[in-house]
Amino acid sequence: MTTRSQLRLLQDLINSLRASMRTKFNRHVSIPDLLSDRWETARFYGFGEGTSCYNNVLILGDVKVGRNTWIGPNVVLDGSGGLEIGDHCSISAGVQIYSHHTVAWSTSRGEAPVEKRSTQIGNGVYIGPNSVVQMGTSIGDDSVVGAMSFVNRDVPSGGRGFGVPFRLQD
Amino acid sequence: MTTRSQLRLLQDLINSLRASMRTKFNRHVSIPDLLSDRWETARFYGFGEGTSCYNNVLILGDVKVGRNTWIGPNVVLDGSGGLEIGDHCSISAGVQIYSHHTVAWSTSRGEAPVEKRSTQIGNGVYIGPNSVVQMGTSIGDDSVVGAMSFVNRDVPSGGRGFGVPFRLQD
Amino acid sequence: MTTRSQLRLLQDLINSLRASMRTKFNRHVSIPDLLSDRWETARFYGFGEGTSCYNNVLILGDVKVGRNTWIGPNVVLDGSGGLEIGDHCSISAGVQIYSHHTVAWSTSRGEAPVEKRSTQIGNGVYIGPNSVVQMGTSIGDDSVVGAMSFVNRDVPSGGRGFGVPFRLQD
Repeated sequence: MTTRSQLRLLQDLINSLRASMRTKFNRHVSIPDLLSDRWETARFYGFGEGTSCYNNVLILGDVKVGRNTWIGPNVVLDGSGGLEIGDHCSISAGVQIYSHHTVAWSTSRGEAPVEKRSTQIGNGVYIGPNSVVQMGTSIGDDSVVGAMSFVNRDVPSGGRGFGVPFRLQD
Repeated sequence: MTTRSQLRLLQDLINSLRASMRTKFNRHVSIPDLLSDRWETARFYGFGEGTSCYNNVLILGDVKVGRNTWIGPNVVLDGSGGLEIGDHCSISAGVQIYSHHTVAWSTSRGEAPVEKRSTQIGNGVYIGPNSVVQMGTSIGDDSVVGAMSFVNRDVPSGGRGFGVPFRLQD
Repeated sequence: MTTRSQLRLLQDLINSLRASMRTKFNRHVSIPDLLSDRWETARFYGFGEGTSCYNNVLILGDVKVGRNTWIGPNVVLDGSGGLEIGDHCSISAGVQIYSHHTVAWSTSRGEAPVEKRSTQIGNGVYIGPNSVVQMGTSIGDDSVVGAMSFVNRDVPSGGRGFGVPFRLQD
């Protein structure tokens, strides 16, 4: 099979899957999301029933996720220092939740080790698009972290706010 | 065909496409962007002439986009509550434009419905990298939203600013 | 070969690579990252020894990168106006480093040209997740740019800070 005919076959497959996605769900997703299933991906990593996870989510180490949680595209779930996420959360597109960082590793030119601390996200938590959660943070049940936030301290249950850094609303 | 030989064939195809991309355009794009065409993707979704759209753009529901608009990688265009974007816009990499959110859905543990409100982006609008536009927002013609902004209120025509939340410059 | 049997073959290959990634490295990566190697990608673009680069990094024009630098997923490295990055840097997931912008292009409805200015990143620099570096910026050795920052002015060697816009800590 020539490279050109192999490419043609692959593009025919992709176009067929894309047309079906558009007809059934009125949406466009990336080629990797056409080739995989968001609920099957979540099950394969032991996440709870009803949880879905886009194909390009980067999952590092041990991450526990509850039921009915939505995990969007371009998300990073870093369990290298431990990460737990509850039920019915919205982990919006572009959100990154960490349990390590490499600040000292970089500024020591690779001498200092990577730092790690575990992170917890409760149940019913909304984390808005592109927000980043620092290692060692705890976010309580039913709280709302607005879009574009940098969460570098704990958020109490029912707390709401946003910002860089995150600020609780009164 | 064994898994190993299938993988080899696929990687040969990818390497061939990558070398061609580098020679012709001096750039590196993801494998899905090697397998698809940005202008064809835009046409398939009915976007205007000259508009281009990277492969991993997530398009939800009915989204209308005008002519000569550049839509970067890692973008979310959410038309579930209605979204229109004009001509000659720069929708920079990582931008997310919404017409729904799931704040009440999450904090009610799945009881409350998803909220929706339509969003409009005019002509000649620049939206900088990683910015997020909240549902129900209107951004006027020829305005500039700087990088890393959270737009949660209307931006007038010709307005310029940035920030979390977005603030107009004097 | 029918479309269905072609899809089945491809999914079998992907599932096999995914299982191997999980067993060996306890992680989940996107399908394109299963099909490519982060170190080989960096070498192909002439980056230094020990540097790695996720598959969906968008590289535009001439970008020079030193040794032992980590380049995460969803990163944009824009060398269209010139970009150099040193050794032992952490270019975190979602970071976008520019040497051009299209503000005038958009607001002039395509009349004005794209603006370009070169950008330099030193050695031992940490740039946190989702941060954006504007064209024409210089970031000195061993400095730390926190997550969610918009860097629109120079950062001195050893400087630390974060924010939109970036603010140096005392």
